[in-house]
Amino acid sequence: MVVATQSLEQLCINSIRFLAIDAVQKANSGHPGLPMGAAPMAFVLWDQFMRYNPKNPKWLNRDRFVLSAGHGCMLQYALLYLTGYDSVSIEDIKQFRQWESKTPGHPENFMTDGVEVTTGPLGQGIANGVGLALAEAHLAAVFNKPDAKIIDHYTYVILGDGCNMEGISGEACSLAGHWGLGKLIALYDDNHISIDGHTDISFTEDVGKRYEAYGWHVQHVPGGNTDLDAIAKAIEAAKAVTDKPSLIKVTTTIGYGSPNKADTHDVHGSPLGNDEIKATRENLGWEYGPFEVPEDALKRFRKAVDRGAQYEQEWNNLFSEYKSKYPEEAALLERMVSGKLPEGWEKALPVYAPGSKADATRNQSGATLNAIATVLPELIGGSADLAPSNKTLLKCSKDFQKGKYENRNIRFGVREHGMGAICNGIALHGSGLIPYGATFLVFTDYMRNSIRLSALSKAGVIWVMTHDSIALGEDGPTHQPVEHIASLRLIPDLLVMRPADGNETSGAYKVAVDNRDRPTLLALSRQNLPILESSSIENTAKGAYILSDSDGTPDIILIGTGGEVPLCVEAAKVLRGEGKKVRVVSMPCWELFEEQDAAYKESVLPKAVKKRVAVEAGVTAGWCRYTTDEGVAIGIDTFGASAPGEVALEKFGFTVDNVVAKAKELLG
Amino acid sequence: MVVATQSLEQLCINSIRFLAIDAVQKANSGHPGLPMGAAPMAFVLWDQFMRYNPKNPKWLNRDRFVLSAGHGCMLQYALLYLTGYDSVSIEDIKQFRQWESKTPGHPENFMTDGVEVTTGPLGQGIANGVGLALAEAHLAAVFNKPDAKIIDHYTYVILGDGCNMEGISGEACSLAGHWGLGKLIALYDDNHISIDGHTDISFTEDVGKRYEAYGWHVQHVPGGNTDLDAIAKAIEAAKAVTDKPSLIKVTTTIGYGSPNKADTHDVHGSPLGNDEIKATRENLGWEYGPFEVPEDALKRFRKAVDRGAQYEQEWNNLFSEYKSKYPEEAALLERMVSGKLPEGWEKALPVYAPGSKADATRNQSGATLNAIATVLPELIGGSADLAPSNKTLLKCSKDFQKGKYENRNIRFGVREHGMGAICNGIALHGSGLIPYGATFLVFTDYMRNSIRLSALSKAGVIWVMTHDSIALGEDGPTHQPVEHIASLRLIPDLLVMRPADGNETSGAYKVAVDNRDRPTLLALSRQNLPILESSSIENTAKGAYILSDSDGTPDIILIGTGGEVPLCVEAAKVLRGEGKKVRVVSMPCWELFEEQDAAYKESVLPKAVKKRVAVEAGVTAGWCRYTTDEGVAIGIDTFGASAPGEVALEKFGFTVDNVVAKAKELLG
Repeated sequence: MVVATQSLEQLCINSIRFLAIDAVQKANSGHPGLPMGAAPMAFVLWDQFMRYNPKNPKWLNRDRFVLSAGHGCMLQYALLYLTGYDSVSIEDIKQFRQWESKTPGHPENFMTDGVEVTTGPLGQGIANGVGLALAEAHLAAVFNKPDAKIIDHYTYVILGDGCNMEGISGEACSLAGHWGLGKLIALYDDNHISIDGHTDISFTEDVGKRYEAYGWHVQHVPGGNTDLDAIAKAIEAAKAVTDKPSLIKVTTTIGYGSPNKADTHDVHGSPLGNDEIKATRENLGWEYGPFEVPEDALKRFRKAVDRGAQYEQEWNNLFSEYKSKYPEEAALLERMVSGKLPEGWEKALPVYAPGSKADATRNQSGATLNAIATVLPELIGGSADLAPSNKTLLKCSKDFQKGKYENRNIRFGVREHGMGAICNGIALHGSGLIPYGATFLVFTDYMRNSIRLSALSKAGVIWVMTHDSIALGEDGPTHQPVEHIASLRLIPDLLVMRPADGNETSGAYKVAVDNRDRPTLLALSRQNLPILESSSIENTAKGAYILSDSDGTPDIILIGTGGEVPLCVEAAKVLRGEGKKVRVVSMPCWELFEEQDAAYKESVLPKAVKKRVAVEAGVTAGWCRYTTDEGVAIGIDTFGASAPGEVALEKFGFTVDNVVAKAKELLG
Repeated sequence: MVVATQSLEQLCINSIRFLAIDAVQKANSGHPGLPMGAAPMAFVLWDQFMRYNPKNPKWLNRDRFVLSAGHGCMLQYALLYLTGYDSVSIEDIKQFRQWESKTPGHPENFMTDGVEVTTGPLGQGIANGVGLALAEAHLAAVFNKPDAKIIDHYTYVILGDGCNMEGISGEACSLAGHWGLGKLIALYDDNHISIDGHTDISFTEDVGKRYEAYGWHVQHVPGGNTDLDAIAKAIEAAKAVTDKPSLIKVTTTIGYGSPNKADTHDVHGSPLGNDEIKATRENLGWEYGPFEVPEDALKRFRKAVDRGAQYEQEWNNLFSEYKSKYPEEAALLERMVSGKLPEGWEKALPVYAPGSKADATRNQSGATLNAIATVLPELIGGSADLAPSNKTLLKCSKDFQKGKYENRNIRFGVREHGMGAICNGIALHGSGLIPYGATFLVFTDYMRNSIRLSALSKAGVIWVMTHDSIALGEDGPTHQPVEHIASLRLIPDLLVMRPADGNETSGAYKVAVDNRDRPTLLALSRQNLPILESSSIENTAKGAYILSDSDGTPDIILIGTGGEVPLCVEAAKVLRGEGKKVRVVSMPCWELFEEQDAAYKESVLPKAVKKRVAVEAGVTAGWCRYTTDEGVAIGIDTFGASAPGEVALEKFGFTVDNVVAKAKELLG
């Protein structure tokens, strides 16, 4: 291996490499290989091209940077420290991967300013990048004027072999090509090594050709370890192509500089070890101590501070001019970025009088989306090729397509996982956009990690999931969710709402829109449901509430969600007719109910009343939380079956008679 | 549209079309569009090329057919009926999508003989096809002799635009190209229509070029509606290319023959309606009534019966010759196909004496896999690029690679979802192969639908999931499973096992291997765990058992799984030291415990003892099932955090002190 000459550029690049080497060694855990190999492309990008302000990581028009190969996070932490972000000090780097440090084992947007999205699960980052670029294109189309391009930034992504092997990257990048997102520039760290060894053993496809098939502009830089000019020229060329996203395949050596471990998987995910670090220092002619950065290198990196302040100042000037010429647009953008919702937006939510026409909550969801879209211009989203079934099309807008970026109906195609990560990227653009993504509830299985990451990374996405039980009928068990509602409730910080009628559906959207830093998932019915007595937007926000009650302490409480609430209502009538005191509780959201104060919870589910029947067309597991040792849950603990919906419901015991029978068993 | 001339071929093709039209209309539900458009390619394939025996759908050497676009299942049901399978009668077709019919809304291998795999969730089928082709290549390499190719069949797949949009198809097809599976031939029904409308709105990539990038042989038949010769020539050409899988892009018109709905998404997923059916009959010159098949057409199709009997007879002759020459190989193959395991195979399972060296269950899993691989030649599998972490490499074999199909170590690359569906395909090949697939437990999120389908379709796959809790440490919350064990337990017919030590790990493999018609998922630790007193293979099979006890009725029961069982053991010692009567229960598998008789369950968890503490490093939801109203679960209901494993465990309360404290609270 050629010893790098210690030009200032090399000093800077080796500063990144050794911060990664030293931090991983000190933590005795981590991934030094990628930072060592990708340091040159990262340096060129952050030094010559990226527009950002280290002292204001949230500057709206900054270029976005995503490290899709999140395991190489020491690359990003080194860049944040070296370029002068306050979020990462040299002390933080010494605390790499320690409890509550700013430098966790993978990049976490909620822990570290300057980290745009949370990566690590491979492929998510590049798909988030598509969402960030989509957000930029949309905002630019909506807000820019011929004399004022106030939204005008690039999204840069560094991804690895692993990201390219994951299907999610194919889904999202096919869409990016279809949409022609020209300001998305991805640098592919082509180092030929994955955890199992050389990519020869499992990854021999022609990646560049695949991206060309997606409609991307593709370049190759063979000398990615040393040829900084070639990297710079390729980024220039990528920026010059404005109607296609760009992939720059940069061939590098993983662990570059390590005489004995470079180009092997030993350097991917383990510390180099003191001997090899010593050998690497010699090999790269590095005379500095652990965590020591040469003054000249730091000075060069820190130019980013003045540069960034200037970029932002120029933009601030541009924006104040824009504000004077276009006060309405400026006010809207400022409101969106502030995260404030328009005064009284919730008045747009549909309200239904008891007894009004029965309808499917998926239809009421569609009506609600259309109603609030007119007062919430930040609402944007779509379905994974199920718009007619999910009822997600906004009549007030058209399709988001190449050159039609001002539109708000996104056509994701049959790409649930890509949709999920793209929605996360839109939310995490930080511009106040409210994304929604839709499919059948059963196909949350295809996008579960993206839903999880929306919760972990505090992305206020609205997940619109229809066909929420065996009641969908004929499509059968492959399409009938059974375990899904219960399993989604297990994801921390995700609000799972299963409304029982139109008012609860409106209430669910009230919750979803108000919660800007946590996602909400709606489980919606295909079949028609009646409008309930005393359902309301306000009640829904409490997670559970009394729908109807007898005088005095109830003998039994019937608890239902979604489509099974009407069964509880009817069963209660029968039981009351036989002299039983029955309370009916509608429980659209476990998480919100748990957030109520003890007094309210006791008022709805008094500890003294232990005889309880829960009814939900899903697995019963978990309901013991509310049914007590003396209660029972009516659900389905097997897969469903293909049959007309009403037949399936009856065969699996979702009938008034069965609810009455189970209740009587408890009452003895 | 040109009216098709009623040649015998056209009669046959239109018979398929109208069976689909009539069945969907009668069910008033379903997808007529694909069968109408794909009927010509399906007819050519089943009439001229496919080798199968309708009277013995399980004939080992049959060509496998997969309808990856499962919503078009009336195409497959029509073919099964027309070619003479006993599993689908004309009455069954009239019962399309009805309760307990043999013709459910999507193809289900467990409902209908002749259906190889369960499809519907898009992309799964083509990935299953890769698994079926892998199984054929492996068995051929292991069993064939120069003078006797007893394993020699093709795998044909029909897939649509939706399958090609899904990332899972990219993952699996990239592998198929890498492996050079030349006997996998996929016909891509290129009809330009998906549910949302024309594919122009979301799917404009060059699919053929993408498959070329994967290393596939790609052809295009533009006249897929009428040019039967071109379809036949393309299949011939595909068969002639033996070192690459083949994609044949067949351009068709969805709903071909329907004058007003063809080439629109209206015909994708809805009945045509009586008027349009009438118009279609006229347009195609179809003079036959609903569900009526012209005699000549039926006769032509039914030639498959004699043809198939002859194919099988020829093969039987070949095999009996093989058997006489190669009795050992023949005996092995016959045993495998019979589903019988070798006598005494379980003696190979490692057994650990109490007090022997503490180790991680992932390591014990690796030791077990290697131990049983020597006595179970049917064991084949690998990891999604985490072999060194998952410990899944078999030392007794080499890598399954192009031209090295006899080997048993599969390198899936970072492709969890593709791995899942490929493993399902290997299991459903019906040749007795026992596939295993491995990744980190948290990444079951990437392959959840494939895991679900293994359970639904009764595929006895072994899912090896390591790094099963926050104890994995530094990688942080993106890699730390928290809700996963609980959420996997919700999937019907999936055995979820979380062994606490080496003996329970061996016991888990005993269960996994014995269960050939349901999948088993193992959750394994990264950290070392001690060997427990009285843990055993036999006890593990009971799902839960008493690990240690005090005399008489216990005051409290401590229940643990996996890495948290040792905490219960130590806590019990402390509590007993203070005069409490404490029982410790290890509970490696909820599902198996629920299958024990009432007496055994009562003997382990007596109803009378309501004070119980469950300890598991995951979400507490669901544990109320075992902890009663008077018990408590110690778990983690938030996301984890990046820190050394022992620090994370301590910070989140997984300590002996905390277990003791919680127990004392209950005991008052």
